[in-house]
Amino acid sequence: MIEHELLRELAEKNTTKIVLLVADGLGGLPLEPGGRTELETAATPNLDRLAARGTSGSSVPVLPGITPGSGPGHLGLFGYDPLEYRIGRGALEATGIGFELGPADVAVRGNFCTLDAAGRITDRRAGRIPSAESFAVVDKLQAVRIDGVETFVKPVKEHRFVVVFRGPGLDGGVADTDPQAVGVEPLAPAAATPAAERTARVAAEFVRQARALLAGEPKANGLVLRGFAGRPALPSFLELYGLRAAAIAVYPMYKGLARLAGMTLVGEATTLDEQLDALAGCWNDHDFFFLHYKYTDSTGEDGAFAEKVRRIEDLDAAIPRIESLRPDVLVVTGDHSTPSRLRSHSWHPVPTLLVADTCRPDGLTKFAERECLRGGLGQFPAKHLMLLAMAHAGRLGKFGA
Amino acid sequence: MIEHELLRELAEKNTTKIVLLVADGLGGLPLEPGGRTELETAATPNLDRLAARGTSGSSVPVLPGITPGSGPGHLGLFGYDPLEYRIGRGALEATGIGFELGPADVAVRGNFCTLDAAGRITDRRAGRIPSAESFAVVDKLQAVRIDGVETFVKPVKEHRFVVVFRGPGLDGGVADTDPQAVGVEPLAPAAATPAAERTARVAAEFVRQARALLAGEPKANGLVLRGFAGRPALPSFLELYGLRAAAIAVYPMYKGLARLAGMTLVGEATTLDEQLDALAGCWNDHDFFFLHYKYTDSTGEDGAFAEKVRRIEDLDAAIPRIESLRPDVLVVTGDHSTPSRLRSHSWHPVPTLLVADTCRPDGLTKFAERECLRGGLGQFPAKHLMLLAMAHAGRLGKFGA
Repeated sequence: MIEHELLRELAEKNTTKIVLLVADGLGGLPLEPGGRTELETAATPNLDRLAARGTSGSSVPVLPGITPGSGPGHLGLFGYDPLEYRIGRGALEATGIGFELGPADVAVRGNFCTLDAAGRITDRRAGRIPSAESFAVVDKLQAVRIDGVETFVKPVKEHRFVVVFRGPGLDGGVADTDPQAVGVEPLAPAAATPAAERTARVAAEFVRQARALLAGEPKANGLVLRGFAGRPALPSFLELYGLRAAAIAVYPMYKGLARLAGMTLVGEATTLDEQLDALAGCWNDHDFFFLHYKYTDSTGEDGAFAEKVRRIEDLDAAIPRIESLRPDVLVVTGDHSTPSRLRSHSWHPVPTLLVADTCRPDGLTKFAERECLRGGLGQFPAKHLMLLAMAHAGRLGKFGA
Repeated sequence: MIEHELLRELAEKNTTKIVLLVADGLGGLPLEPGGRTELETAATPNLDRLAARGTSGSSVPVLPGITPGSGPGHLGLFGYDPLEYRIGRGALEATGIGFELGPADVAVRGNFCTLDAAGRITDRRAGRIPSAESFAVVDKLQAVRIDGVETFVKPVKEHRFVVVFRGPGLDGGVADTDPQAVGVEPLAPAAATPAAERTARVAAEFVRQARALLAGEPKANGLVLRGFAGRPALPSFLELYGLRAAAIAVYPMYKGLARLAGMTLVGEATTLDEQLDALAGCWNDHDFFFLHYKYTDSTGEDGAFAEKVRRIEDLDAAIPRIESLRPDVLVVTGDHSTPSRLRSHSWHPVPTLLVADTCRPDGLTKFAERECLRGGLGQFPAKHLMLLAMAHAGRLGKFGA
């Protein structure tokens, strides 16, 4: 990324502090044509006041029309081009359950399945085995031992689990073993590149031992592996921006994404109030603070318009506590839109607000989708947000003489 | 193009239908400073109503300041980066007269010229020979026979014609034979790359035989060849988007551009009404419909402001017939601006409107250049329009988990 080359050239030391408040899935849609979005409906006196002081705009997470998952959505906000830095499915799954991937790890998503006597798949989800049952089956797999490789097996939910292979010479270039059909056997792990041949052998040995350990299981007597992936090689926040970054999140996925970017996890908060306590508590030890607020996304995914409005209002009420710490730059945005009307992530641009003493006024007095269209940040790629934050924080020198 | 990689990864099946209505040269300029553009002047109640339902913006065909021809203008709208996918002059000229280029063809633009007894050019346009005369001269060239190559010669207009060489091992890398001057002989066809050496020999043989056939002509006794070009290798709409695409155009150029993108030509319409008949007639057999409306461009090229206004109003009147088919996504745009004040294509952004149930309201109630500046699509590269159309049609999956 040219942006990273610029940062390496221009990033400067300063004592300023940047807060990035991510309201997951913030952007929305009206329920009825011509109506208001969730954010347009919510009473947000604090955010509106900040909009008058700061500069607003609409961020495009990946490209117009592209709906991002949480991984690419956050990578963009953190300043990594999500088209260049891809997090493979296995690595994201491991990240999502809070497993800290090392640089030599290869992570794989596993699915239990049911096999007949001839080894052919009869049920690709092992009868949708409940988590309580499958966790015990995952425990059996802890007995796998492979020469020269450390193996971790972690439950996710129902038939899903994660396998991580740790050791020298591993590579994510192994094809899925899921034949995506019943009536056939799982595929053997096959290397897509010469570099992955050892990993394919390791995976085959894992499957061999696992099959033996699962032989007596009524439902989950087989498994398929998908999305072999190493840890993505992201330059860290310290390396890239010179920022000592803290992450204050409740859910494992967002803690994991922050760790991939080299942030330090702070606190064990389970509520927004506790997150703000953690923020205040670590204020002097860090320069950058990523606060993740989940409920604007989960209410959107549930199709709960009124509830999403209320969660936005809860977030608004938390703003004064953040302001009281006097951050030099405060950014409020989302990693993507999650309109409750669609009950899913969407491609719509994300309302974004940057507040700093160096903001040029754009005449807005409210923070909402429609207003952001006329904001001073315009429509911009999310990956450029960190450049703006760094500039307003007095942490970027001049380019060229 | 990274966009094409994404499409290959994310495109999903659906039964939704997309209409792309291209009003050629739609964007305009006021005649007087502070006045209104053609679109701002026109009464467009239907488009204005759609603007209230949909999302508007300004599309940039190639790059700011770059005036596109019809080829790059349409490539962008179809989702092919016009800077990456170039249609060589010969290929565009052949496409423009409705010649369907094959993958092994090399097309060349030919100009008749007048040569003196020593073979030096005395008139680079053969006395601007009228089409009626030159068509007969083109007929003489049908007698050319070259070993292992099929040769097509087609009249265009006045001194212009097209030659297509068809056969194995041909390549467009041959330099123009037009010396761009009088008093000198035409250049010999010269290969710019080793791969084009055979093509240069074929072209030289064509010129040799043509000179003999034209020896008795009073004006058009010589010729020069320009813009050697193969058919551009565009991935088809079906391959790229999974869309069964129909093109409903009146003029050969636009039919040809649609064919290059793998669209099926539907109907033999000569009026907008007939185009709408064709649209309704093929509605069940296709997923995507490209409707090309020429007169907003031709009136602009003529400098006929009032006539362009009237043609825009005619187009507006046709909107309800399109709406009655209930497309899931309706896009109204142009391939470039053709301000009647400039009597030519221009670089100005193009007013664009996308209507779908998943549009986020942008508060506009009129479709015109000035309003589009405040629209929810912002200013965006034309090549991203298809990504947006695909997203609103529910035909793009999530990027990353």
